[in-house]
Amino acid sequence: MMDGSHQEIDLNADLGEGFGVWRLGDDEALLDIVTSANVACGFHAGDPVTIRRTCAAAVDRGVRIGAQVSYRDLAGFGRREMEVDPEELCAEVLYQIAALDGIARAMGGEVSYVKPHGALYNRVCRDREQAEALVAAVADFSPALPVLTLPGSVVHEAAAAQGIATVNEAFADRAYTPEGALVSRRLPGAVLHDPAEVSARAVRMAVEGEVTARDGSRVALSARSICVHGDTPGAVTLARSVRQALTDAGVRLRPFA
Amino acid sequence: MMDGSHQEIDLNADLGEGFGVWRLGDDEALLDIVTSANVACGFHAGDPVTIRRTCAAAVDRGVRIGAQVSYRDLAGFGRREMEVDPEELCAEVLYQIAALDGIARAMGGEVSYVKPHGALYNRVCRDREQAEALVAAVADFSPALPVLTLPGSVVHEAAAAQGIATVNEAFADRAYTPEGALVSRRLPGAVLHDPAEVSARAVRMAVEGEVTARDGSRVALSARSICVHGDTPGAVTLARSVRQALTDAGVRLRPFA
Amino acid sequence: MMDGSHQEIDLNADLGEGFGVWRLGDDEALLDIVTSANVACGFHAGDPVTIRRTCAAAVDRGVRIGAQVSYRDLAGFGRREMEVDPEELCAEVLYQIAALDGIARAMGGEVSYVKPHGALYNRVCRDREQAEALVAAVADFSPALPVLTLPGSVVHEAAAAQGIATVNEAFADRAYTPEGALVSRRLPGAVLHDPAEVSARAVRMAVEGEVTARDGSRVALSARSICVHGDTPGAVTLARSVRQALTDAGVRLRPFA
Amino acid sequence: MMDGSHQEIDLNADLGEGFGVWRLGDDEALLDIVTSANVACGFHAGDPVTIRRTCAAAVDRGVRIGAQVSYRDLAGFGRREMEVDPEELCAEVLYQIAALDGIARAMGGEVSYVKPHGALYNRVCRDREQAEALVAAVADFSPALPVLTLPGSVVHEAAAAQGIATVNEAFADRAYTPEGALVSRRLPGAVLHDPAEVSARAVRMAVEGEVTARDGSRVALSARSICVHGDTPGAVTLARSVRQALTDAGVRLRPFA
Repeated sequence: MMDGSHQEIDLNADLGEGFGVWRLGDDEALLDIVTSANVACGFHAGDPVTIRRTCAAAVDRGVRIGAQVSYRDLAGFGRREMEVDPEELCAEVLYQIAALDGIARAMGGEVSYVKPHGALYNRVCRDREQAEALVAAVADFSPALPVLTLPGSVVHEAAAAQGIATVNEAFADRAYTPEGALVSRRLPGAVLHDPAEVSARAVRMAVEGEVTARDGSRVALSARSICVHGDTPGAVTLARSVRQALTDAGVRLRPFA
Repeated sequence: MMDGSHQEIDLNADLGEGFGVWRLGDDEALLDIVTSANVACGFHAGDPVTIRRTCAAAVDRGVRIGAQVSYRDLAGFGRREMEVDPEELCAEVLYQIAALDGIARAMGGEVSYVKPHGALYNRVCRDREQAEALVAAVADFSPALPVLTLPGSVVHEAAAAQGIATVNEAFADRAYTPEGALVSRRLPGAVLHDPAEVSARAVRMAVEGEVTARDGSRVALSARSICVHGDTPGAVTLARSVRQALTDAGVRLRPFA
Repeated sequence: MMDGSHQEIDLNADLGEGFGVWRLGDDEALLDIVTSANVACGFHAGDPVTIRRTCAAAVDRGVRIGAQVSYRDLAGFGRREMEVDPEELCAEVLYQIAALDGIARAMGGEVSYVKPHGALYNRVCRDREQAEALVAAVADFSPALPVLTLPGSVVHEAAAAQGIATVNEAFADRAYTPEGALVSRRLPGAVLHDPAEVSARAVRMAVEGEVTARDGSRVALSARSICVHGDTPGAVTLARSVRQALTDAGVRLRPFA
Repeated sequence: MMDGSHQEIDLNADLGEGFGVWRLGDDEALLDIVTSANVACGFHAGDPVTIRRTCAAAVDRGVRIGAQVSYRDLAGFGRREMEVDPEELCAEVLYQIAALDGIARAMGGEVSYVKPHGALYNRVCRDREQAEALVAAVADFSPALPVLTLPGSVVHEAAAAQGIATVNEAFADRAYTPEGALVSRRLPGAVLHDPAEVSARAVRMAVEGEVTARDGSRVALSARSICVHGDTPGAVTLARSVRQALTDAGVRLRPFA
């Protein structure tokens, strides 16, 4: 057993993804597991009452709040790529961050980072124009906010060019390519379900900063946050198991600096 | 001609009330007339790009920005009363103010006051519960923001109880009852169209603080702002004439303190 | 035990009330219980894919399809009364019925009746203007479609005046006033939860055409349909118990004529 | 002057593209010019009241009604391509056609053809999957409805495979490549503005079935409809001039068979 006493990692999850009467995922359970909450801002999910309650619950538990910004697409839950004009995307992202921050502040918190959601997350990893629009919105709101995203993606360059920090996240339940990319969900074995395996990967990500790719090679990761999910009962169990394993390994769970 | 040299008044109008490809009113013309812009926040009108452009144009001309908050009703342009739960109304208003303020700040401005729109405006004049929800949202965002509204309405009491200031506005082109209420638009003579008459009323409102009711009696007003419109070519002409008459009478046009 | 062999009743429930990724209620379970499905049409819930799947499932099981029309209010799930102009309400209801019917026909079914949802249901029970607008939409689409509603409400008169049939429904799990109205949900005892009691009331409604009001008096009902719910596990159990009790009492379950 | 007495052509335009208080284009003027109205169905524009009034006006003037179906995108006016799942696109298109048809029938008309709008129009010209989804919706609603689209595009094959007819349209005010495609709007000279030139092209399209490409070569077209626009005063003047030139050349204006 290694000495992991000086190690620390952030755990993030999507929260507040209901709308009106509809709910999604077990927010209560997740808030006891994560250290950072990616709160939906109203464009793919998250009406103002849900936002308010989610922020209040996060503040109560000392969980940090991030803006989970999205394309304007309630019907598609922000999962469909859209050819949005950069000026429009920038204004829409700024609108979402500001709206969430206003509610978070009323609840005693604030927006501490930005994480794009769904199709926008995927798009800014490879589309420089949309990545720049996203980053410009962050810079417009507050240049101090980091963007939480995938290592090695285009959005890092766009952020660096505008003086915005980025923070890498890792996915303990996803298979990696030797190049450090996520294996597409459409391929077999892309998503891991065994709590023991997923937890062990999370610990290795946090302590050694690496993961084993699907071809057996070692991939170095510089992730300061691990993303967990809560949209199924199994997902919550998995997330809880990841947290427990990290704690057992001496890794301190706290929001990234 | 009286000595009006020490008098001053604010002129406010609704701006940025387009959505996507659609436009409403002549924002450019109005921005050269008014001193305060009630900017639509996205719930009855006003997509983020429109908000951004409107804020930028207002800042360019030194026009102050207010949050024109509304029920969530794009299809009805916020003109239909809704039985909204107070918790929900409060969260929705807070969301709108914060979103607008974030964009205004990115453009070098900020939200300086709140004016409810359409059916919400009418409702908070007489419904204590919704008035309290509106005021609570303002207090949540910033207790320093005043609410622009009709003299003598319920929202003043609700605001006073929560320590929020109110500012009275008057309508130079609307007939008044002897009690100081607006004559319903459904009644004949409720809306005045003659530029000379409307301008003379505006001057009297600003200089003498009063208006002649439809029965000929004098009604005292304590309006610190006069509302003008820009949704038709005739409306813009009327607004321009009101501004000219005020200036000619020695009234200084400036945002209310 | 009375002879109920010649009795028959319809059981109706709201279905397809999800939107996008969000789900509400257990449609699969309800479709095995009811004889009529009030399918959400997209204005309070029900995206086109959900509508399509719900219609296909209803046709598969021989469950009849009705149009559950609503105010345009996804955020409020159609539960908030709105001051909608009659011309607009009529056009919106017609739009919903037609859209649902088009999808139902593609799945081998059709719209057989109309049931207003939520706040619109309550409103047309007492507001003649909105009731007339609703009925006018039904008449515009097909004068052969009946409106499913509460006995004794204003919508019956409006329907009669336009030659549209109405069908009364009853609520086995709701307390009644001596006048035959539902006791407001805000009052204690308004909703009954005991399966045995609710089932017994359903049987009495179907077989004897009456119910005991909360003051112990007998109230005659002429209900040809009983409404059940499926939005909680308990609700589904209750609905199943109602169905079983009706069958055990010899009541034939079939769509109203 | 050639003998065009036996020639005939359809003129189509987009109509009813307002939403709520917002208007777009001069529908009244266009309805006196065109023979086919592509009526917006509510997804990129067109609330039910606007649809109803547009259908009523079209029926009054003997103008045929087509369903102008779109992605669900009010904020972007259907001009942004979206990665919509085929099952969802099919259901959404069916919903739109059916809703419009229901209102059209109440006004004494009916949907006679389908024309995709904006980004969907462009997409189905080259994306087989989305083209098939669109055509499947038409087939679901009525296999008798033709799809109005661009010659040579992918949607023709998809339609043929499902037994749906297609009708080619031409654009008198757009430059063509030698291959018969439209020159991209982003290139100089892509849109023609001179009424005399545009009208002459329209006549040649109708009478000779061809157009001169930008490199001077002749391109054969088999267009049975010419698309005109009405979103600017200049556009209406141009459309009127096209109609007049066609009539003067002896071309009969009537809906395509």
